[in-house]
Amino acid sequence: MTKWVYTFGDGAAEGDASMRNLLGGKGANLAEMSRVGVPVPPGFTITTEVCTYYYENNHSYPADLKDQVMAALSAIEAKMGKKFGDAENPLLFSVRSGARVSMPGMMDTVLNLGLNDETVKGLAKISGNEKFAYDSYRRFIQMYGDVVMGVDSHKFEHVLDQVRETNGYQFDNQMTVEQLKDVVEQFKKICEDDGHPLPQNPIDQLWGGIGAVFGSWMVDRAIYYRKLNNIPGDWGTAVNVQTMVFGNSGDNSATGVCFSRDPATGENYFYGEYLKNAQGEDVVAGIRTPQPMTKLVKERRGIELPCMEEEFPALFKELSDIRAKLEAHYKDMQDMEFTIQDGKLWMLQTRNGKRTGTAALKIAVDMVREGLIDKETAILRVEAAQLDQLLHPMFDKNEKKDVIATGLPASPGAAVGEIVFSAEDAEKAAGEGRKVVLVRVETSPEDIAGMHVSQGILTARGGMTSHAAVVARGMGKPCVSGVPNLRIDYTAQTLTVDGVTLKAGDMISIDGTTGQVMAGALKLVVPEMAGDFGEFMGWVDSIRKLRVRANAETPTDAKTAKLFGAEGIGLCRTEHMFFDPSRINHMREMILANNEADRRKALAKLLPYQRQDFVDLFTIMDGLPVTIRLLDPPLHEFLPNKRSEQEEIAKEMGISVDEIIARTAQLHEANPMLGLRGCRLAIVYPEICEMQTQAIIEAALEVASKGIKVIPEIEVPLITSKKELEICKHIIDTTAEKVFAEKGAKVEYFVGTMIELPRAAILADEIAEVADFFEFGTNDLTQTTLGMSRDDAGSFLPTFVTKGIYSADPFQSLDQNGVGKLIAMACKSGRATKAGLYLSICGEHGGDPASIEYLNQYLDGVSCSPYRVPIARLAAAQAAVKAKKA
Amino acid sequence: MTKWVYTFGDGAAEGDASMRNLLGGKGANLAEMSRVGVPVPPGFTITTEVCTYYYENNHSYPADLKDQVMAALSAIEAKMGKKFGDAENPLLFSVRSGARVSMPGMMDTVLNLGLNDETVKGLAKISGNEKFAYDSYRRFIQMYGDVVMGVDSHKFEHVLDQVRETNGYQFDNQMTVEQLKDVVEQFKKICEDDGHPLPQNPIDQLWGGIGAVFGSWMVDRAIYYRKLNNIPGDWGTAVNVQTMVFGNSGDNSATGVCFSRDPATGENYFYGEYLKNAQGEDVVAGIRTPQPMTKLVKERRGIELPCMEEEFPALFKELSDIRAKLEAHYKDMQDMEFTIQDGKLWMLQTRNGKRTGTAALKIAVDMVREGLIDKETAILRVEAAQLDQLLHPMFDKNEKKDVIATGLPASPGAAVGEIVFSAEDAEKAAGEGRKVVLVRVETSPEDIAGMHVSQGILTARGGMTSHAAVVARGMGKPCVSGVPNLRIDYTAQTLTVDGVTLKAGDMISIDGTTGQVMAGALKLVVPEMAGDFGEFMGWVDSIRKLRVRANAETPTDAKTAKLFGAEGIGLCRTEHMFFDPSRINHMREMILANNEADRRKALAKLLPYQRQDFVDLFTIMDGLPVTIRLLDPPLHEFLPNKRSEQEEIAKEMGISVDEIIARTAQLHEANPMLGLRGCRLAIVYPEICEMQTQAIIEAALEVASKGIKVIPEIEVPLITSKKELEICKHIIDTTAEKVFAEKGAKVEYFVGTMIELPRAAILADEIAEVADFFEFGTNDLTQTTLGMSRDDAGSFLPTFVTKGIYSADPFQSLDQNGVGKLIAMACKSGRATKAGLYLSICGEHGGDPASIEYLNQYLDGVSCSPYRVPIARLAAAQAAVKAKKA
Repeated sequence: MTKWVYTFGDGAAEGDASMRNLLGGKGANLAEMSRVGVPVPPGFTITTEVCTYYYENNHSYPADLKDQVMAALSAIEAKMGKKFGDAENPLLFSVRSGARVSMPGMMDTVLNLGLNDETVKGLAKISGNEKFAYDSYRRFIQMYGDVVMGVDSHKFEHVLDQVRETNGYQFDNQMTVEQLKDVVEQFKKICEDDGHPLPQNPIDQLWGGIGAVFGSWMVDRAIYYRKLNNIPGDWGTAVNVQTMVFGNSGDNSATGVCFSRDPATGENYFYGEYLKNAQGEDVVAGIRTPQPMTKLVKERRGIELPCMEEEFPALFKELSDIRAKLEAHYKDMQDMEFTIQDGKLWMLQTRNGKRTGTAALKIAVDMVREGLIDKETAILRVEAAQLDQLLHPMFDKNEKKDVIATGLPASPGAAVGEIVFSAEDAEKAAGEGRKVVLVRVETSPEDIAGMHVSQGILTARGGMTSHAAVVARGMGKPCVSGVPNLRIDYTAQTLTVDGVTLKAGDMISIDGTTGQVMAGALKLVVPEMAGDFGEFMGWVDSIRKLRVRANAETPTDAKTAKLFGAEGIGLCRTEHMFFDPSRINHMREMILANNEADRRKALAKLLPYQRQDFVDLFTIMDGLPVTIRLLDPPLHEFLPNKRSEQEEIAKEMGISVDEIIARTAQLHEANPMLGLRGCRLAIVYPEICEMQTQAIIEAALEVASKGIKVIPEIEVPLITSKKELEICKHIIDTTAEKVFAEKGAKVEYFVGTMIELPRAAILADEIAEVADFFEFGTNDLTQTTLGMSRDDAGSFLPTFVTKGIYSADPFQSLDQNGVGKLIAMACKSGRATKAGLYLSICGEHGGDPASIEYLNQYLDGVSCSPYRVPIARLAAAQAAVKAKKA
Repeated sequence: MTKWVYTFGDGAAEGDASMRNLLGGKGANLAEMSRVGVPVPPGFTITTEVCTYYYENNHSYPADLKDQVMAALSAIEAKMGKKFGDAENPLLFSVRSGARVSMPGMMDTVLNLGLNDETVKGLAKISGNEKFAYDSYRRFIQMYGDVVMGVDSHKFEHVLDQVRETNGYQFDNQMTVEQLKDVVEQFKKICEDDGHPLPQNPIDQLWGGIGAVFGSWMVDRAIYYRKLNNIPGDWGTAVNVQTMVFGNSGDNSATGVCFSRDPATGENYFYGEYLKNAQGEDVVAGIRTPQPMTKLVKERRGIELPCMEEEFPALFKELSDIRAKLEAHYKDMQDMEFTIQDGKLWMLQTRNGKRTGTAALKIAVDMVREGLIDKETAILRVEAAQLDQLLHPMFDKNEKKDVIATGLPASPGAAVGEIVFSAEDAEKAAGEGRKVVLVRVETSPEDIAGMHVSQGILTARGGMTSHAAVVARGMGKPCVSGVPNLRIDYTAQTLTVDGVTLKAGDMISIDGTTGQVMAGALKLVVPEMAGDFGEFMGWVDSIRKLRVRANAETPTDAKTAKLFGAEGIGLCRTEHMFFDPSRINHMREMILANNEADRRKALAKLLPYQRQDFVDLFTIMDGLPVTIRLLDPPLHEFLPNKRSEQEEIAKEMGISVDEIIARTAQLHEANPMLGLRGCRLAIVYPEICEMQTQAIIEAALEVASKGIKVIPEIEVPLITSKKELEICKHIIDTTAEKVFAEKGAKVEYFVGTMIELPRAAILADEIAEVADFFEFGTNDLTQTTLGMSRDDAGSFLPTFVTKGIYSADPFQSLDQNGVGKLIAMACKSGRATKAGLYLSICGEHGGDPASIEYLNQYLDGVSCSPYRVPIARLAAAQAAVKAKKA
């Protein structure tokens, strides 16, 4: 017989903290608190397995669930000396959800369950507080009607509004008993008229509440939250049925929420809020101003209201002891809920508290110093993704924000500047020393230079993996993308959103961490890189196994990367270097050339620029390796679309515009992602590969001649076979030898390959014979393995994630089940051929903590955008700790 | 020590026929002939391994090769009683190439090697024929100069022209000795002036000849031939050095080429040609008309010239005996070369003769009847691809052809009709009962109906896998694609090629087997499906394991498929059904709809058409399974590009053209191949899947109610996970249950999936849990595994095949090394989950013999276009025979 129900409370419990998967976080902690002797109102937890059963069996329960629930109920009745539904001394329950991980506010809760027309009288009698009893009853009907029976909650609010209005009340607790009784009758009528009369039988109420909680696992907002937080839908929720205790049963009662340390700053003092004579929802609802816990906080913040330390000194002492006990027990900062009922303290919940990145870091470092946790545990305590908050400027939290629109938080950080509507204007303004925010419908590779000089980027279209988003994250520029209703009029030079119109030159502020867009210039604060940060990252680096490099092409990016601890450049995308206005036309000439001679002529013009690029990078990286990928994208990406640009090229090349247009049409591809690109370019046009190799080797020799160590790694993209790599390596080696002969000097260099197509992964054993290193290009590998174009997936991928086909967007977090298996296979077979093969990945996944954790077992290193380097370092350390513990 | 050199001749040999890989076909057969006692001029073979060594070591030879060659030379000198370079009694050699498989005319040959200013005198003396000696010498210089030293051959021809002109000669053999001696001097001068004096040392000549043969392995025409015939470049060629015998040393000498049976018809009689007093090249060159071998042929063809049977009765008898002996020995039709020197018969070569498809079939069937081979051997004797010749109409071989252009042989067979330049005109003309050939720059899905009613298709652009080519092969329509210089003027309604202009309505003839295009109407002959064909295919069917189905959507195709022995429909691409003019606008309405309600409205209009399609197919297939693939392509493929069509749709939908254009733009995808298509359509728009299922199930019930057995198999395309298939299967099952309930009847149906993306292959074990069958879509699986768009590969794939990166076009013949491994993996893991899983493939590879041979070990069946069904049946039988033998 499966055990579906676990009891807790009164110093004992059937479950414990380790049973989080089965009992949910809340249930496991209630059981654990009971076990360690904290006063917890008795109750029971219905397991997450029942939730799974419920959804797999057409919303029905296991046959033996009912008996187990009834048995648990009887046990509680015995403990509390009360009976559920007893008209004299009624037991009341709360019914709450509780998944493995907290999903605050996402699922349903019903309180005061067990009240009906009879038991409300018993409650009134036994509490000696008729007002409290009827207030509880009206709250119950309102909540049950809304949550369980689906009655429109506005109807209840309307009744309360009328009472308040008629009587000039400001708060609900000003209502008299008679008024409350009348409200109760009106509420019951509302339910009846809606076709859902309130069940009077408490057992029916209980099952209704349980069903509502399970049902709320699949409501849209919960599904959406899980999607955002990568929580699998099949985990399910548990249901916690717990004896009600009342913080609103008089002035010797109270309710509160507190943290064992400050969740915003991490400081080690008792933090929280409470309200006298109130239920928990009153604290959250913000109707009354909650009171502080301690004198310390009162003083610090200049609060006039009395604190708990003053109002309930004994209970404050008891609670402080529990705070210490629970923190020592869980060895982590606790987020607790408590209620005082008639002078008795009850703990309703404890859990590890959510915290800001700043707080997470401080608490972790402090707890190590306090001897509470070791360094490895500390490393696991800071969410890698949260580090982002420590690296980017933010808006002052205390300043009022005039939010005019909200889009996707595409690249974190805050930016302020004048609005410009084109990359050209951005460059011009930046040239004059003005700070700008580039606003576009969407961006394209031609905008790169303009993006570079902007403070931030705002686009009307595009998702989290749009061009703007990917490039901005790469540059560490704040970006808000995909703003609904944002209309941009390039001719009028205006943007309009929900009736607000701003024009070019107006100041705008965007927050890439939240997706908010504000009119005007907000104040920026640059977060302190506190000393704790450095110490913490030291622990991180001492434990991680994966080497972390950065994707970088420009000197700025390379410098940022080094500042953030990158151990080299893992991906230098040479094509990015060709979009500069001084070069793009030579590039276009090369592409539009009809024969090798003309191509070579154009390439010769590009050579000095490329060489200088590499001289700069080698110099900055100063002894660290630099992986340079040969030209990769389809050539038509570089071609001009505008007539004026086409005319310019035509003039430069001495041919007609029609010829330019014809050649452009000829280069058009049905599926450019799968076309003439990567090593295919080098094989069809060896002269391109020759020019790039010449630039790399000449730059390496030039820098080396100054006594700086250079480690050039030349990377061949998009191969499917050993032969392609051999052909490219031959071109590279021959060219390098020629340069060595000309210059009379040599430098060691390495030749490796991207593994970014399924065939390359399958044939990794053969390919390893000629490769010095493998770098997995997981963007393209994901596109081809899943048959899914990143640019086009917007029309179906959100549906796919919602339906659980993929547990997350596979372009943000590696598809471990599919792409991951190919990588694992290629790593094993590559290493079988060549034991010392250096294995790494680049691309979006290189900075994604979940992907890093998975890849830690296979790779030597990752490469990611400069601003994600600290995140990758931490994620790598966490993976190492977890691997060690497993 | 590696043995690089193998001797043969005079009743003994170091090699034999089994050593074809090492000695090449020619060398192995010379050895084998020597062993069985056929008179072969002694010689030796330098192995293919030397060729490999040569190319891997910068055109140098193994160190010990020289000694082995010199030893072999001495042995021959001993046997022949002559010395190489001996001024009195000189031994002369031929030097010929010989790869594993014959590559006729592709590589170089040098004859008469060993002649110089001294030995020519010896040859004159010993043969008593000075004219013959100097004629041989001038031929040698001409050949050696051209082949070994690269002297422009026109210079030699120019000298001969002058001699002929001056003396009024018609043939070279009219020259006098003095004239020949003068020619020799002039030839030597030409070589000297070219900087390449003729080596007088015979050993130098020998190494020059050997080097030229090895070098010719990598000349363009040889590389091209190998590419066309899928011969790997690393096989290399052997070099055969053989004692010269002379068919031109007088009237008691002759030379000839003969076949043991007629290579065109397969009839069992001695077939061939010979020339008295001539060298082999004279037979081939066509300067003199060759004579027939037998009286039989003389009579049959009404030839006046004397035959060998009359001129050399004794030697004819000896040759006939050798013919019988070799055919009995090799148990196959032989292609032989012989020379008679001064009344002595020498066999220079024997090999299995090339033959037409008709001949191959007849010879195979006859030899079984004659007890020479068993049925399994017979099955291996007919090249599967050759069957095509037996299935399509051809042009009468005897009719004169006015070839105006040659394009790619895109789809076999001959077609004659009036020129039309649009699908609409084709339909109109066909409606009036006229036969037409559709001529387009290229075709698109909108032309399908017009292609269907045409006799054949001619396109200016496109390769072997262009839309026109693929669709035409699918329909069994002749097609010539990619005709260089063909200009089509749609406005003027003309086509122009190399100065010839034809207009709409003019008759044109195209040959899709050869790629030829002729002006006017040629006579068509429909090849006989002789009784032998039926008998042979009976053997084929009794041995093959793979089931063969056809890809078919129309009743015509389904009937053809059944006629050709298809065991069901393996792929019915439902999207093809929507291009019919009566439906396309409903389809477009569906696609352009902005909401589900409008989509359902349009789908309701399509339902009756779809249902009737399936009623027809089920009725025709009469108890055979029919696999129906749900809608697969990106929706924008169906949208109108022409303004007039856009206006029509707009009117029908009651919206503006601008809205149509906007919606079309919205549907645009960067990489449609990797976009919203396949099961993604069914998941995002379940109503499409519902309509298709409803049509299938209703049709099945309707046909079943007439007492006809139906086996519907519903196939879900483009899945990457079990979950997608589950979701689609749920829609299908729910819809089917609804139809069953409505109609009060049931029918069994199956639900399976395409495996056409790498992730699906990787996760085949999970997917098999919910699939009744797997069908590998190797077109898409190749595109994604190789990251190569079929539509775009034209810009680099030819280069890739030439460079040996792929051994063949992976879209024509399965990439066994990459895609093949994924298929093998998926088959194994799918079967591990579900032992009875039916495994098959569809798409181009399903009709490719090499692919079928590889897949035979993994699959239950293949599906191919109707006209390739017999080919697939034969290829499957051949695979089974080979598997049995291995």
